[in-house]
Amino acid sequence: MALVEATERTQRDRRAVDAVIAALAARFGNRLVTSQAVREQHANTVTWIDNQPPDAVVFPQATEEVQEIVRLCAAKRVPVIAFGTGTSLEGQINAPRGGISLDFRDMNRVLAVHAEDLDCVIEPGVTRKQLNEQLRDQGVFFPIDPGADASLGGMAATRCSGTNAVRYGTMKDNVLALKVVLANGEVMSTARRAKKTASGYDLTHLMVGSEGTLGVITELTLRLSGIPEAISSGVCPFPSVEAACNATILTIQSGIPVARIELLDALQVRACNLYSKLTLPEMPMLFLEFHGTEASVAEQSERFGEIARELGGGPFDWATRAEDRSRLWQARHDAYWADRALRPGAQAIATDVCVPISRLAECVTETQRDIAATRLLAPILGHVGDGNFHLSLMVDLADDDEVKRAKAFVERLVARALAMDGTCTGEHGVGQGKMKYLLAEHGEPALAAMRAIKRALDPLDIMNPGKIVSL
Amino acid sequence: MALVEATERTQRDRRAVDAVIAALAARFGNRLVTSQAVREQHANTVTWIDNQPPDAVVFPQATEEVQEIVRLCAAKRVPVIAFGTGTSLEGQINAPRGGISLDFRDMNRVLAVHAEDLDCVIEPGVTRKQLNEQLRDQGVFFPIDPGADASLGGMAATRCSGTNAVRYGTMKDNVLALKVVLANGEVMSTARRAKKTASGYDLTHLMVGSEGTLGVITELTLRLSGIPEAISSGVCPFPSVEAACNATILTIQSGIPVARIELLDALQVRACNLYSKLTLPEMPMLFLEFHGTEASVAEQSERFGEIARELGGGPFDWATRAEDRSRLWQARHDAYWADRALRPGAQAIATDVCVPISRLAECVTETQRDIAATRLLAPILGHVGDGNFHLSLMVDLADDDEVKRAKAFVERLVARALAMDGTCTGEHGVGQGKMKYLLAEHGEPALAAMRAIKRALDPLDIMNPGKIVSL
Repeated sequence: MALVEATERTQRDRRAVDAVIAALAARFGNRLVTSQAVREQHANTVTWIDNQPPDAVVFPQATEEVQEIVRLCAAKRVPVIAFGTGTSLEGQINAPRGGISLDFRDMNRVLAVHAEDLDCVIEPGVTRKQLNEQLRDQGVFFPIDPGADASLGGMAATRCSGTNAVRYGTMKDNVLALKVVLANGEVMSTARRAKKTASGYDLTHLMVGSEGTLGVITELTLRLSGIPEAISSGVCPFPSVEAACNATILTIQSGIPVARIELLDALQVRACNLYSKLTLPEMPMLFLEFHGTEASVAEQSERFGEIARELGGGPFDWATRAEDRSRLWQARHDAYWADRALRPGAQAIATDVCVPISRLAECVTETQRDIAATRLLAPILGHVGDGNFHLSLMVDLADDDEVKRAKAFVERLVARALAMDGTCTGEHGVGQGKMKYLLAEHGEPALAAMRAIKRALDPLDIMNPGKIVSL
Repeated sequence: MALVEATERTQRDRRAVDAVIAALAARFGNRLVTSQAVREQHANTVTWIDNQPPDAVVFPQATEEVQEIVRLCAAKRVPVIAFGTGTSLEGQINAPRGGISLDFRDMNRVLAVHAEDLDCVIEPGVTRKQLNEQLRDQGVFFPIDPGADASLGGMAATRCSGTNAVRYGTMKDNVLALKVVLANGEVMSTARRAKKTASGYDLTHLMVGSEGTLGVITELTLRLSGIPEAISSGVCPFPSVEAACNATILTIQSGIPVARIELLDALQVRACNLYSKLTLPEMPMLFLEFHGTEASVAEQSERFGEIARELGGGPFDWATRAEDRSRLWQARHDAYWADRALRPGAQAIATDVCVPISRLAECVTETQRDIAATRLLAPILGHVGDGNFHLSLMVDLADDDEVKRAKAFVERLVARALAMDGTCTGEHGVGQGKMKYLLAEHGEPALAAMRAIKRALDPLDIMNPGKIVSL
């Protein structure tokens, strides 16, 4: 991606930014950084979206400090952009109008674990792996697993999910409450620790997925799950993507509480074989995992095996040994790197549509035909229990014609998903990259409602402006 | 409750209402009703909250008609109050400022069932029993079961739940998308049928639980569940409420996917014995249900039995025969009538606090002591897997001293729950009855955010005004 300094601003804006930077430097000393390298690291670096660095990066250590920063920025109408690990895929952390990036690196404490209540309270900079490391000896875990070791604050802001969502839900199902610094500098608690509530508007869900455009998350209360007594994992080849999708539908419909059910197309299997030294047959494949008691995972595995057989798939090899399981899921999580190795030097561009599961086979197979017709290299990976699948478009960004073809392909993919009552993004969020699809997906009344909410909570448009909706 | 005609309005308001009624009568003929009896039926009739009837009731048959009605009302600033079955418990359907009640009796069609996708699309007047009747032969069901056979539109508006919530979640977890007529008369679709999405602000969850104050729901897309292959139910006595609560905590923590786990205190058991001709020992009791395969429900039941024994409870009698199960759950669902039979002539006043489950035993036992000290008759029933419990305060409304004691008791109960990081309402909603607790529960910044959202989406304050937040 290209580096683009903030262009959408006037002389007055520049003076306002300088004043805020001076005030922040006086207050935060060397926790305020303006070097070019650090600024660029705090903007988009992972897609074909331009890198639009903030004017400065500050490292707050407490909610009160975030309030101070937001108040300073609000007084001068300078944008505020929250930053976790920088792994978002749609330009969510870019600063198209400049502004101050708040890096939550130093707010990474687990504040409380309530194992009896299956919840914990954490700061937004805690990453998912760090959290699970700290939870492990209490018999509980946090199930949401996007590819990257993202920060939980960023994961909540993006409403992300991952391979476990079919069983455990997405961030929307696993955030109980948030502490949020609003555009006016006030701190709002969205809810309490009670597991359910019917008390007023659902501010928690309004904030989850709002990508920092309505406020900055400074504390999260997360729902935890008990570590299952037994886990079995396995792989199952299918004669076609369609058969694999149909096996998925039957599995879900039969009420088998599958914990993970991931589709890899033949090309993705080949990439994983090459990169992770596996020897899987190069055909459409489901990777599965079952959680439960010993008896239950055995029963689930057997029932899935029967479904696979009925649909011409199999054999379904399953294992309960931890090392076998980790090897498999490591390969799945390394798919991004495997795809990059398929075509060294190319940029991996991730797509993210999600459709009703009954339309999944059709959507995937039409998309495969489109890939072939468009002459693109694009392995497919899907969280198919949810109807969500990704393509890694391996694009040579120096080849204008290929970039053009890839962009047109993405437009067709989104249109195809919307025509099937689907969404342009199952889990990556809107950021800058998907704003253009929202009108087609939601219609003008819903988009107008989103803008009205944005204006109501951020009348000066300083919270991560230029993302999700434009005022 | 007393009958109170709208008092908070001026001469101008009265003329506006008359104009709207005349226009509605011209447009809808005998589907517009202004008789006193019908108006009173469309206001609160089930608690000690006053009955505040609307000025007229209209029976729309389509989303477009709802748009017409809302536009007429908006032009004259006349309140719009959505009405399902009238079973809400906090005055949600009252018309303190007068206005037009929209009764969804005639919008009761199941529009589509997508069994493969485990979803359906319905009109808001469909009731939960009607829906399950229509779904049964397709192997799917809708799990949310408040006591009453409420309309699904009302259930979504109130964010209700019931006995199955511990396994299947509340309405917030089971509404995929809504069609909503906004205060400006536009129709908004909050989401599509894809099972997950990260596309923009979560308008679905904003509308669920907003009690008609942000818009009127005219269509719902609901998530369905597969009918379990096997079900077992049972009852288990415990030496104390505390032991029953601790058994609940251990059950949840052990990852037993219990479908229902309901606490009845000794008084509630006595009421059920008398009313439903049961012969249960009159001591604290858990009613349970397990869903799964034959092997899995047997395993779950046995594991629960072990937990109960460890805590001095039991014996745990469980049955898989449908007739035994229905008898049990019928008794549970008849608890309201059983409580009324305990003290004929008294009004049953339902409370609804919810606390983190680790605090549940303490909250219930302190509450029992308070009941005794306050000399009230109040059986306890709890959806204890969620930390949510109800008291049926059986109050003689003619006895001023008793009413006063009961009201003070409710204040203490709510304060107790809030002090334990709980909520004033787990599933009944805010309506008029709980508005006074929101500041203590949410704090001023969250309440200000709710008001800002209300103003943004309903600037004229015509959508069910005087509920949840006051502008």
